[in-house]
Amino acid sequence: MSTLSNSTNIFWQECPVGKVERQKLLNQRGCVVWITGLSGSGKSTLACSLSRELHSRGKLSYVLDGDNLRHGLNKDLSFKPEDRTENIRRVGEVAKLFADAGLICIASLISPYRKDRDACRAMLPDANFIEVYMNVPLALCEARDTKGLYKLARAGKIKGFTGIDDPYEPPLNCEIEIQPKDGFCATPGAMAGQVVSYLEDKGFLKDHKTPKAGSVAAAGGRQSDRDMVMNSPVVAWVANVSADLCQYIACNPERLSSDHVLHLLFCFPFQHLHRLALSFCSPSTFSDHDDDRDTLHSD
Amino acid sequence: MSTLSNSTNIFWQECPVGKVERQKLLNQRGCVVWITGLSGSGKSTLACSLSRELHSRGKLSYVLDGDNLRHGLNKDLSFKPEDRTENIRRVGEVAKLFADAGLICIASLISPYRKDRDACRAMLPDANFIEVYMNVPLALCEARDTKGLYKLARAGKIKGFTGIDDPYEPPLNCEIEIQPKDGFCATPGAMAGQVVSYLEDKGFLKDHKTPKAGSVAAAGGRQSDRDMVMNSPVVAWVANVSADLCQYIACNPERLSSDHVLHLLFCFPFQHLHRLALSFCSPSTFSDHDDDRDTLHSD
Repeated sequence: MSTLSNSTNIFWQECPVGKVERQKLLNQRGCVVWITGLSGSGKSTLACSLSRELHSRGKLSYVLDGDNLRHGLNKDLSFKPEDRTENIRRVGEVAKLFADAGLICIASLISPYRKDRDACRAMLPDANFIEVYMNVPLALCEARDTKGLYKLARAGKIKGFTGIDDPYEPPLNCEIEIQPKDGFCATPGAMAGQVVSYLEDKGFLKDHKTPKAGSVAAAGGRQSDRDMVMNSPVVAWVANVSADLCQYIACNPERLSSDHVLHLLFCFPFQHLHRLALSFCSPSTFSDHDDDRDTLHSD
Repeated sequence: MSTLSNSTNIFWQECPVGKVERQKLLNQRGCVVWITGLSGSGKSTLACSLSRELHSRGKLSYVLDGDNLRHGLNKDLSFKPEDRTENIRRVGEVAKLFADAGLICIASLISPYRKDRDACRAMLPDANFIEVYMNVPLALCEARDTKGLYKLARAGKIKGFTGIDDPYEPPLNCEIEIQPKDGFCATPGAMAGQVVSYLEDKGFLKDHKTPKAGSVAAAGGRQSDRDMVMNSPVVAWVANVSADLCQYIACNPERLSSDHVLHLLFCFPFQHLHRLALSFCSPSTFSDHDDDRDTLHSD
């Protein structure tokens, strides 16, 4: 605790309630899903969709969004290389804390440099760091330019912009790669499904096959099954359909013939409404709605 | 995203799964319990005890320990005044994230300066920042000197040590004050009980009166009642009794007559074992064991 040195006289404090106990409480395993990719590649979209999908299964997740953190924890940092590194380091440390708390922590940051991402990976037991690479070509990201940043970068109004005048180093050893197929972006639901499948396979979502109606909150014994159906799962599902639709249209404008638009705007939602109506007779039909959402992509 | 300015071109990313949804999932309300006080005043002891007590009620908490964070997130910071401020700021920001995630975040730091603590309070909606002041006299902390740091500070081997040659500014508006009574330190269980009562009164622990056997994990439907009794509640309770005993002895050495020691070491545990045995016949008898633990203090 000298004023000069940093980490001297610091005692590690162990607590009897640890990660294992918290994981048991939550019925899941804590980990970090680290989403990396160019600006406009769909990182935040995937983060939100994944968070919705996990929530609908009664799993606790939390999104650490790079932009949001720059309003708080990292507001003292610029975009200079050394500050980018410190930005990623801090997010990595916080993500590690969340994973230790038992949550599925979804970190969504451009995180362009391989060494910075690998440093975060090194903080966690290897299997608990799941790197998701949004492999979307620069041209497609720039064509979308959802935040108008590429335009500013091309005009020289932003310096050191990843993909334009600062490099993006793609992962060499990522656990999951998400990319457009035949020029089509996957829907948020399909992308989330890909990650959820991985998490399921690796045992991070224990007991996800137990009754879906709020595997955590139902413990309170307060909410009836019908209440639960009207709450998170249905809301999350309707939100998923809407998000899928908007994302599909935003992402594939050049693909849309007028027939296609008519089908998407009118027929497709009715198919889902039909299933929604059916679900009130039999809530269990919700459990396999992933297939539906995927039709958007293969449509 | 200019290389010069910090927070320009940053877009706030809203996610449809928010704090309210996570709180519903967890059946609790996220908040920050900020424990402040001199080195050796019992902050970490309270943090652990509180975490155990909350866990035994099926509530998800996470401890941000100042010392532990200096091994990770804050390892680049020294104990210079400006670095202390940055240390507290970062912990405040991370605590805010945990509260937003729905957890009861227990931050345990000396946090000597009032303005730094108030800055953290200002980050959160007022009622969600619960400042706990460990009001233990310097003389008592120094007499205990659990980490041997006061000795080093008095010998001039540590500069800027809080309470010796750096000030501690007590809170003016804390929510909870914990102090020795008649020179006796409260037991960890009693201290945790004081905080839990506050959290209960303010509605942070919703539905805590529902069956105690793991209000969250029980949702999985996997563990029998007997399993649950043998798991977290009993383990936490036994740990509580042990911790209480050790803490009491460590904290009140001058009070211990040989009769007292005999009573503590032999009679007191047997009283608890008796109750433990009884509890196997009737698990519900666990629900009011707070009274027991408090006898340590008033003993």
